[in-house]
Amino acid sequence: MSSSSSSELEMEIFQYIDGHQSDFIKDLKEWVAVQSDSVQPDLRKEVIRMMVLVADRLAALGATVNSVNLGSHQLPNGQDLPLPPVILGELGRDPQNPTVCFYGHVDVQPAKKEDGWKTDPYTLTEINGNLYGRGATDNKGPVLAWINAVETFRALKLVVNFKFVIEGMEEAGSLGLEKLLEEENQCFFSDVDYIVISDNVWLSNKKPALTYGSRGNACFFVEVECGGKDLHSGTFGGIIHEPLTDLIALLDSLVDPTGHIQIPGIYDSVAALTEEERKLYESIEFDLEEHKKNSGVKKFLYGTKEEILLHLWHYPSLSIHGIEGAFHEPGIKTVIPSKVIGKFSIRQVPHMDLSVVKQQVVEHLEGVFSRRNSPNKLKVSMPLGAKPWLADVNDPLYKAARRAIKKVFGEDPDFIRDGSTVPVARMFQTITRKSVIMFPIGAADDGEHSQNEKISRHNYIEGTKVFASFFLEISKLHRHLHETSNMEIKN
Amino acid sequence: MSSSSSSELEMEIFQYIDGHQSDFIKDLKEWVAVQSDSVQPDLRKEVIRMMVLVADRLAALGATVNSVNLGSHQLPNGQDLPLPPVILGELGRDPQNPTVCFYGHVDVQPAKKEDGWKTDPYTLTEINGNLYGRGATDNKGPVLAWINAVETFRALKLVVNFKFVIEGMEEAGSLGLEKLLEEENQCFFSDVDYIVISDNVWLSNKKPALTYGSRGNACFFVEVECGGKDLHSGTFGGIIHEPLTDLIALLDSLVDPTGHIQIPGIYDSVAALTEEERKLYESIEFDLEEHKKNSGVKKFLYGTKEEILLHLWHYPSLSIHGIEGAFHEPGIKTVIPSKVIGKFSIRQVPHMDLSVVKQQVVEHLEGVFSRRNSPNKLKVSMPLGAKPWLADVNDPLYKAARRAIKKVFGEDPDFIRDGSTVPVARMFQTITRKSVIMFPIGAADDGEHSQNEKISRHNYIEGTKVFASFFLEISKLHRHLHETSNMEIKN
Repeated sequence: MSSSSSSELEMEIFQYIDGHQSDFIKDLKEWVAVQSDSVQPDLRKEVIRMMVLVADRLAALGATVNSVNLGSHQLPNGQDLPLPPVILGELGRDPQNPTVCFYGHVDVQPAKKEDGWKTDPYTLTEINGNLYGRGATDNKGPVLAWINAVETFRALKLVVNFKFVIEGMEEAGSLGLEKLLEEENQCFFSDVDYIVISDNVWLSNKKPALTYGSRGNACFFVEVECGGKDLHSGTFGGIIHEPLTDLIALLDSLVDPTGHIQIPGIYDSVAALTEEERKLYESIEFDLEEHKKNSGVKKFLYGTKEEILLHLWHYPSLSIHGIEGAFHEPGIKTVIPSKVIGKFSIRQVPHMDLSVVKQQVVEHLEGVFSRRNSPNKLKVSMPLGAKPWLADVNDPLYKAARRAIKKVFGEDPDFIRDGSTVPVARMFQTITRKSVIMFPIGAADDGEHSQNEKISRHNYIEGTKVFASFFLEISKLHRHLHETSNMEIKN
Repeated sequence: MSSSSSSELEMEIFQYIDGHQSDFIKDLKEWVAVQSDSVQPDLRKEVIRMMVLVADRLAALGATVNSVNLGSHQLPNGQDLPLPPVILGELGRDPQNPTVCFYGHVDVQPAKKEDGWKTDPYTLTEINGNLYGRGATDNKGPVLAWINAVETFRALKLVVNFKFVIEGMEEAGSLGLEKLLEEENQCFFSDVDYIVISDNVWLSNKKPALTYGSRGNACFFVEVECGGKDLHSGTFGGIIHEPLTDLIALLDSLVDPTGHIQIPGIYDSVAALTEEERKLYESIEFDLEEHKKNSGVKKFLYGTKEEILLHLWHYPSLSIHGIEGAFHEPGIKTVIPSKVIGKFSIRQVPHMDLSVVKQQVVEHLEGVFSRRNSPNKLKVSMPLGAKPWLADVNDPLYKAARRAIKKVFGEDPDFIRDGSTVPVARMFQTITRKSVIMFPIGAADDGEHSQNEKISRHNYIEGTKVFASFFLEISKLHRHLHETSNMEIKN
């Protein structure tokens, strides 16, 4: 395949993609309509239905599809809930071609119209070039962009062997996935050369990026309980140790007004900041004002680009998410809740160890609680622990992705990390020991996990092109590496 | 009417009540089945339907009934919601008889099966002599006991003129009632001699009580907002001032682990504890262990009966109820909520002034917030302010009630206060300047505002008898006072 024929093929593919925009958007609309929320137990059947749609889509592509049953898991209340299957797909087995494995998820975060959505979260709605809907950018849009890129490409000529790992429990901790990867490591993954994950967004609204690291996520539940039932604040206010007062004090001990975590020892294992790493931050194009505008926040904790990026990527953070069991509705209820569960999480960074973090949190909270002399019961647990991830930006995989981006978007990508967690990146890298790249196509203002989540039509369609172009680049790169190594053998 | 004929009449009435137990319980079952929750806007139509049932019931009794339209009120979100009418009823106009006005409410606190109810909260269910259901004791049971006592009595001989004030907004601050009382003070209330309220419970499970005071209720909303939308804790955790972290710190500044309120100046106007008042507490029969058992709590903040009663009646308390806008469901959501509203209330006591309390709370919270240097927006409001109430235990009204209790239950009542708020007691006393009594028939373990609210069959039926007996006693007392005053005039 000469350079010019490759370029003609690429032109042909790009034209095909432009011509099929409305089909691609129709696909996304159909997927967004499925309330595949993996967090709320009641919606589990919708996640399972979503997996069937994915399997059908891949089968229609010509792929062999294996829906791997992962059994069930137990909720904190003891209820057994079935896990959705993980879809393993395979298309093409030409030993001349590189094998690229794509990972994506089709479950979503909870979303309700009344949370503040301007449109129905499960009806994909285009407004001013943006496609609004839960899962549009996290992660249904990118998954479909990849599948459509494969389809487009395939209609012309297959230069890459494809594998697919599509799951439905990412937003609930990817339960069962790690075990499956371990089991399939010697089988499904044995001939995989490269692993691509597209489950995050760019750092800016306009400039593409490639991601080489992510923070972890250690989620904690702090439960305080006084007795069997909620009490009336008139009948018991002033004479009991109220569980919610205890919990508020515990939560207030976690982080100071500057965002500094107050748990003793928590910063001890954070990787030292090298001069090389600091320089990497300096060269990144990052519009602080734009990021602030995207957030809706008036003022950040730090004033410079470097400080902001360091605190999103290099340092851990702690966020309090809410309280279960207390009064949460509009209006007034003069209740003393009997059992309350505070929820917070720590985004850990290299080289914080999860079990050490858990121990530090438990010891700290138990210490604060014991100083209160409360007769209530305290229970601290870590229902979810996801590790941070870091890749080598000099890997050939990153080069191919960089070239594809340059071709489609006309500029080099930033090399960035992600402040949020993609535990699968670390998981894939640790288990398979293959090269892993995080290859986002969504923009910074897409609002993953938030109200009014969207992907722009531009990013969705150009993202499809970038993936297609990436197939050509990785194919060329692979062929070149292959030829070089053959020559070396001959020599 | 001689003492012996009064006693015969009483026996006849008691027999009638015993013979109609199942009818009375059927009535209560019908009322409990109406989800007349005045707190949740969606259920307002059920409150209004409940008021129609009350009007019908009083009309069937032969009373003239006036359903007074109070217009509407505005919710914090701007929505206009109709207020339920207040029912004014009147039965008997004999100038020889005293006129007793009864106040009660038929709205209820929120209740859902999944909050931890063993039975459906809106299906009255008898288990081991207890009638479980939302509103069974607060306040549908006592209202029906009074109405049934009137009916019983009336079937025989009317010795008292009755008036009724029944409302449907008590659990949401009795909106509109105060204005109505002021308007009707010269009309409906002009010939009222005594006002009876039965909207609280005894201090023990077994020993009857009469109540001469109640704490107030100043409810506060503390709102902290950062911007337009919820944010992802990975993308923004560590670089913004999180509103929930600010709110947790504000709530944590309110009360210390010993239950002492930390708001400067808040105890300044609390009435000094006199030796006389202290003695009153000493003579009350109060089983600390039983009260603890009712609460389900392992340990109280204080160890003696006197300290406990002082902190329920004489001193203010502060309880935190919950947070609106944060994640409150089971499971995990790694969200940074953009707008959170903390809810707490202060049970004030004589002679704390509501506007002073409000100012102290606002100044304190603004001070704590400003020291955090947060760019977020703080808003403190007091959506509900109910004043405390105190009556004279030497009033003749208390004597009649005491005699009725002695007759039906065979022992003298305790003279107690209520740690919770009955703003209507203070309101009726301040506006009408008539004698007001709080005359409970429910027991300490009834669980008002809590899961598994109940009234025992015994208390419901014997309470009906106590009310009937009270009619005879107040009639005798009134006749005696009248004769005495006539004699005084003749002299």
